[in-house]
Amino acid sequence: MKPLQQNSVIPLYHQLMERLKESIEKENWKPGDKIPSENQLMDEFGVSRNTAKKAIEELVQEGILYRIQGKGTFVAKPKLQQSLMGFYSFSKVLKENGLNPKDIILKIEEVKPSKKIIDALQLDENENVIEVKRLRCANNEPYILESSFIPKSVVTDMEQLKKVGEISLYDLFARQFNVVVSKAKEAFEPVLIRADESGYLQTKEGRPALLLERIAYDAAERPVEFCISIVRGDRCRFYTELT
Amino acid sequence: MKPLQQNSVIPLYHQLMERLKESIEKENWKPGDKIPSENQLMDEFGVSRNTAKKAIEELVQEGILYRIQGKGTFVAKPKLQQSLMGFYSFSKVLKENGLNPKDIILKIEEVKPSKKIIDALQLDENENVIEVKRLRCANNEPYILESSFIPKSVVTDMEQLKKVGEISLYDLFARQFNVVVSKAKEAFEPVLIRADESGYLQTKEGRPALLLERIAYDAAERPVEFCISIVRGDRCRFYTELT
Repeated sequence: MKPLQQNSVIPLYHQLMERLKESIEKENWKPGDKIPSENQLMDEFGVSRNTAKKAIEELVQEGILYRIQGKGTFVAKPKLQQSLMGFYSFSKVLKENGLNPKDIILKIEEVKPSKKIIDALQLDENENVIEVKRLRCANNEPYILESSFIPKSVVTDMEQLKKVGEISLYDLFARQFNVVVSKAKEAFEPVLIRADESGYLQTKEGRPALLLERIAYDAAERPVEFCISIVRGDRCRFYTELT
Repeated sequence: MKPLQQNSVIPLYHQLMERLKESIEKENWKPGDKIPSENQLMDEFGVSRNTAKKAIEELVQEGILYRIQGKGTFVAKPKLQQSLMGFYSFSKVLKENGLNPKDIILKIEEVKPSKKIIDALQLDENENVIEVKRLRCANNEPYILESSFIPKSVVTDMEQLKKVGEISLYDLFARQFNVVVSKAKEAFEPVLIRADESGYLQTKEGRPALLLERIAYDAAERPVEFCISIVRGDRCRFYTELT
């Protein structure tokens, strides 16, 4: 392999990361393959242990590699690709990718909405909302921490919301509340995972995540859900097509 | 104001951030308004200096507040909203938001493509690409660090690419290279700003950013550009509509 550039503005660990990524892209290494050890990388690229360690650590954090204690470091499966070009069901996307979806319900509760939620849902000043907070997992690993805020007027029977682990929220809306979600607006921005979120998401504070905010509307353009999701950046990727 | 919850799992600085955000959302404070000092926040919310400092620091990093040395901390303008629902011109979006667009060209150079670029542009093994690297600014502040990789076969006259500061790249494609971009695929994921990018973007390493990858196609579905952008998360927000 070509040696790394010692005098580049790009730090050595980053050059090494790029080389390792390229080996994965070129499919020299496939998902599940074991990559060379720190010692082997130090020999092959002429870098210090710290550099080799940092490159591997970063690629683990990015979700490109994963570690098994006492066994070594391996190439991870590619990130979950999720389209933004129409309605998507997270559970369905997981199934299509051979992953087993599971929702852990953290909270179903009547709460006083913040100003942001009042605006998004066009609520009256004293109207409360029902918060459904879920941890959305794939193969038992948490991918998304999600809170749906639903106007109380929509939720005709709060008990029904407990079924949200079995059927999708919008199916539940249609079947139980007679509300058909037919349009949504989504906004997203990159954020860092906060300490109180990192426990749920089983990742570290300060790692990259996508903050996704969705307002869902029924056929009469009435807002029926405001949903805030924290999506792990090391596990998910979004795409769209522009024409 | 309601006191903060001392025994919550949500750290105090984060509760304070939420309170300050709410004051901005409720428009008690408008863009350009000065917010209370650290001392005032300590008094009002019964928090330590560290907590007040950390809350302000985080909101500055998120781009919600900004500081003027010796003058205080102020409410920033809302983030730039950019649609993902069709072709967009960054310069046009800026102008619509009353911001002055400017591109700084960092590099126009023939380079050997990586495996990723070869795949994206469906290149022959020995075909080189032209890299156009730009820093895209709004009111002289850098928002996006962007590299376009263009197949050499598209660029019939490399000199023309220097005009990219004056007219948009796709207008240039159409006028100079007779290539009409008519479709694009975009993928994005949250990342952290790297040390070598932070200098260009005038922000700190480890801050949140969006990594945007776009493949642009001409009318014959031939890939004519692969573009990698690092978008500052404290300055930009994206949105789309699902139907």
